[in-house]
Amino acid sequence: MTVSPFQSDLLTFFLRLKSSDLQLRFCTNETQATREKFVAKLGRLGFDISVSEVFSPAPAAIAVLKERGLRPHLLVYDGVLPEFDSVDKANPNCVVIGDAAEKFSYQNLNEAFRVLVGLDKPVLFSLGQGRYYKETDGLKLDVGVYMKALEYACDLKAEVIGKPSPMFFQSVLTDMGLQPHEALMIGDDLVNDVGGAQNCGMKGVQVRTGKYRLSDENHPTVTADGTVDNLAQAVDVILNQRGH
Amino acid sequence: MTVSPFQSDLLTFFLRLKSSDLQLRFCTNETQATREKFVAKLGRLGFDISVSEVFSPAPAAIAVLKERGLRPHLLVYDGVLPEFDSVDKANPNCVVIGDAAEKFSYQNLNEAFRVLVGLDKPVLFSLGQGRYYKETDGLKLDVGVYMKALEYACDLKAEVIGKPSPMFFQSVLTDMGLQPHEALMIGDDLVNDVGGAQNCGMKGVQVRTGKYRLSDENHPTVTADGTVDNLAQAVDVILNQRGH
Repeated sequence: MTVSPFQSDLLTFFLRLKSSDLQLRFCTNETQATREKFVAKLGRLGFDISVSEVFSPAPAAIAVLKERGLRPHLLVYDGVLPEFDSVDKANPNCVVIGDAAEKFSYQNLNEAFRVLVGLDKPVLFSLGQGRYYKETDGLKLDVGVYMKALEYACDLKAEVIGKPSPMFFQSVLTDMGLQPHEALMIGDDLVNDVGGAQNCGMKGVQVRTGKYRLSDENHPTVTADGTVDNLAQAVDVILNQRGH
Repeated sequence: MTVSPFQSDLLTFFLRLKSSDLQLRFCTNETQATREKFVAKLGRLGFDISVSEVFSPAPAAIAVLKERGLRPHLLVYDGVLPEFDSVDKANPNCVVIGDAAEKFSYQNLNEAFRVLVGLDKPVLFSLGQGRYYKETDGLKLDVGVYMKALEYACDLKAEVIGKPSPMFFQSVLTDMGLQPHEALMIGDDLVNDVGGAQNCGMKGVQVRTGKYRLSDENHPTVTADGTVDNLAQAVDVILNQRGH
């Protein structure tokens, strides 16, 4: 197995925090796989994480659906479908879209649209609002693009679940039993990770890896509480502040 | 051949206006067929129209492309492709989308997106901005929905060609050698036909057929200069006003 410099950095970060008394949660907008798959993949890379430490949009959506008595028509990637096993999907009264990739066909979009226009009070949930991402074979349109498409078609505003939604960060804080000022978010995505956490009252630190762009340091709306070169440096800052 | 009440109404309208000294042009947002096909279809229904009397988004787009030295990447319905035969499409520096229907696949949208993000100054033209339309097998998403998707993905504003764009109506007036106050637009679509013509300085009359909805008579932004039950009634009003 090849371990990238980023993976090695993440592993050091993880092991040092695990051996401290700090709580650690992983927040991801991954909607193509279940948390089980995600955890198994990280396990193979040396991370000993349990499913309950991972926060992703699908389980957050399920909590909202159950609370509001909503039955979804799903337009999501097949890999994430098992997360929705426990959800009543008969006679749908809302639509949930995730990063469905190839499943974002003309036919499937028409179908999701027809469900929405057939409802008295159409409700659309979007698991994230990303514009695009990079894969080995090129740039791919992300779920936010299809959210905008359905919003326009139905003249409605979708409810976004996942980062940067404050509701999403709040659910993680609740799970840890912490107030916003007691928690710190570290991520490479200025708007979704740092800005989202800040909107929820947390501090947000950006790492100069992955999605980081030099222009992020002069962003028009989001200013990170700190910027670090890598996760090793982030953990130094955190543990030093705590006097470890 | 079955002739619907609407077709019979349109034919009466057409023949009476043809025998007057008024000029007549047909404005359509049809982007799934060439004007030749459109004219041939109307010919079979008894309308003697030439291609030069029909205004549709594709030729309007071609005029803009040639004027601005733009070479399009096309995401349009196969049926309308022949309209673009004379256009240089090598090494594209803009994207043109029409109602591509089944061709609005995940793959084709990613491709259009990649062309746009690869440009220094991305330019997106949309042949119309409709939300959806009805076919015998159900509601279908229209080009405007995919326009919004690409606008969000690339953080840009598309240029809409076709109704209700004032530029589109102006090109028809120029062709007839008329000032806006000398022309009248009649259509069933309050926003695209009536509102678009009014924004160009023309009067706009709505017909209570096709897309007409009772709520159009109290629309928040567009008020027709007149509303008639059918085209026969519209032609009565026009010819009476002219003293025929």
